[in-house]
Amino acid sequence: MDASQPESATWQGQKVLITGGAGFIGSNLAIRATELGADVTIIDSLIPEYGGCLYNLETIKDKIRINLSDIRDDFSLRPLIENVDILFNLAGQTSHMDSMKDPHTDLTINCMAQLNLLETCRQFNPNIRIIFASTRQIYGKPTYLPVDENHNINPVDINGIHKYAAELYYGLYGKVHGIRTCILRLTNTIGPRMRIKDARQTFVGIWIRQLLEGQPIEVWGGEQLRDFNDVEDVVQAMLIAAQSSDCFGKIFNLGSEEKVSLLQLANMLQELNGGGDINIMTYPPERKKIDIGDYYSSFERFRTMTGWEPARSLGETLRRTLVYYSDHLSYYI
Amino acid sequence: MDASQPESATWQGQKVLITGGAGFIGSNLAIRATELGADVTIIDSLIPEYGGCLYNLETIKDKIRINLSDIRDDFSLRPLIENVDILFNLAGQTSHMDSMKDPHTDLTINCMAQLNLLETCRQFNPNIRIIFASTRQIYGKPTYLPVDENHNINPVDINGIHKYAAELYYGLYGKVHGIRTCILRLTNTIGPRMRIKDARQTFVGIWIRQLLEGQPIEVWGGEQLRDFNDVEDVVQAMLIAAQSSDCFGKIFNLGSEEKVSLLQLANMLQELNGGGDINIMTYPPERKKIDIGDYYSSFERFRTMTGWEPARSLGETLRRTLVYYSDHLSYYI
Repeated sequence: MDASQPESATWQGQKVLITGGAGFIGSNLAIRATELGADVTIIDSLIPEYGGCLYNLETIKDKIRINLSDIRDDFSLRPLIENVDILFNLAGQTSHMDSMKDPHTDLTINCMAQLNLLETCRQFNPNIRIIFASTRQIYGKPTYLPVDENHNINPVDINGIHKYAAELYYGLYGKVHGIRTCILRLTNTIGPRMRIKDARQTFVGIWIRQLLEGQPIEVWGGEQLRDFNDVEDVVQAMLIAAQSSDCFGKIFNLGSEEKVSLLQLANMLQELNGGGDINIMTYPPERKKIDIGDYYSSFERFRTMTGWEPARSLGETLRRTLVYYSDHLSYYI
Repeated sequence: MDASQPESATWQGQKVLITGGAGFIGSNLAIRATELGADVTIIDSLIPEYGGCLYNLETIKDKIRINLSDIRDDFSLRPLIENVDILFNLAGQTSHMDSMKDPHTDLTINCMAQLNLLETCRQFNPNIRIIFASTRQIYGKPTYLPVDENHNINPVDINGIHKYAAELYYGLYGKVHGIRTCILRLTNTIGPRMRIKDARQTFVGIWIRQLLEGQPIEVWGGEQLRDFNDVEDVVQAMLIAAQSSDCFGKIFNLGSEEKVSLLQLANMLQELNGGGDINIMTYPPERKKIDIGDYYSSFERFRTMTGWEPARSLGETLRRTLVYYSDHLSYYI
């Protein structure tokens, strides 16, 4: 088996639970896992400011079980988790600014619910395998590039603190209670089904909306380098990790060797769209305080372990994403 | 002014709030701050399994304001914090084993309440100075000795994860919101007014009880090296940090250059007591999993910054502590 192409045989009939499954990455993962023959249940609370959107699951809605609930509801979680083989845990509050304005909500979702979820697994399904989606945000402002997994942890916002605390929970429940958990630290992920209503999930979302609505793209700063992963590559990484026993108990960065400045990215989108304006903006002070400058990841540890690497170029991803939102814009704004 | 002897003039009339102020360190701090002329309020919830004990405040009960409440009560916290000059934040769940059995409670006290407290300060008293009591526990099993503040963070239990997350809150609220916070990472602290009912706060507590009640001291393992601080030295460190503008925004270990094995410590107690038995026990598996081996701190950063160093020898501390509990045993068992 090519490590980058998990066979359908591996997934056939596997009971898969995806929290945040109506969200950006969750829905793409649900679609792919369903194609591979998995028995998929998704949980989503559809909090309006977050990434969940039922239209994301339109093409598979009759093939999966959609359970609308909040991962903070302890009691409903138990029956949902009890018989699951693999849990992809993607539910979370992801907005950095919102975490600073309302740290309490970020705590309840990104820590308390994670802890309750792990306790539920420990008590009722200790044989579960869990892939936990973490974020590059926990590294803060890089002290060297590319950032590998040994880089210091230095979260610059409440969201980063809580995502890191959750990582530590997953590590601890692995070590002390033997729960198989693997942590993937995602970099900027883009593709169809991301939130484009605003910049809460990714600034690329709002750029695409601005472009398609004939508004100028607002680029804050512009010189910062970033790496991007196509959501399909991220989905592939998660599927691989879930089936690789070597991955459990470990932490891996995802990432890309292709890195661009924000202004270059805006220019690529402008060109693919065949036009559009770009406004370069200066950071407001409260945003500047938590800006991290250049960032890109080393994903060497994960490549060495599994053979995974990004299969889609940034240009291809942006093109596919623009086409998706041209065709489905009304469902996302 | 000798840095190790803050003058009464500095403290006269200062509004001091101590959370966990009926507890071990909190009550010793309340006594000293009152002696120095501070206007002291303590908050304590007197949770039976924790360190709070009203008898700890017996000698100053008419000179301070005792407010029995839980730091998880957001609303009561606001009027208590509004006019305070210096907050010594000592309230916490400290039992490592309890944090593993009931992680949710540890989260609400050691993270959620801390976050709410910082939010209250940000909104209603941004000029407050805060000394936050953290713990060596966040370092986990040392990779080198003595452990300084640059040592990796590797908590081995839920309590360590939450104490570290709280440290990150204090750091972030300093950087982003300008709140003056100083974090002291305490090593094993001992002295009068510690909990001796059981091992929840420190194993030395239960040893003293066992010795005074004519029971054998139960020493788990015995070879592990530890350093110990007299509670009066810890109180002194906190008072110094609160009055040193250079300390804000920083993290410091406390610690001692005098280190002993657990068995040596038991022998010292036995000798000071003029007798008593020692049983050497083997770690139960669930405790072994979170054992950290040898540990002792470097407090060089704090000494260099402030001149603080422990003034009491371990023998002197143990002697004074034994005398205290011989005289007051009935209030503590």
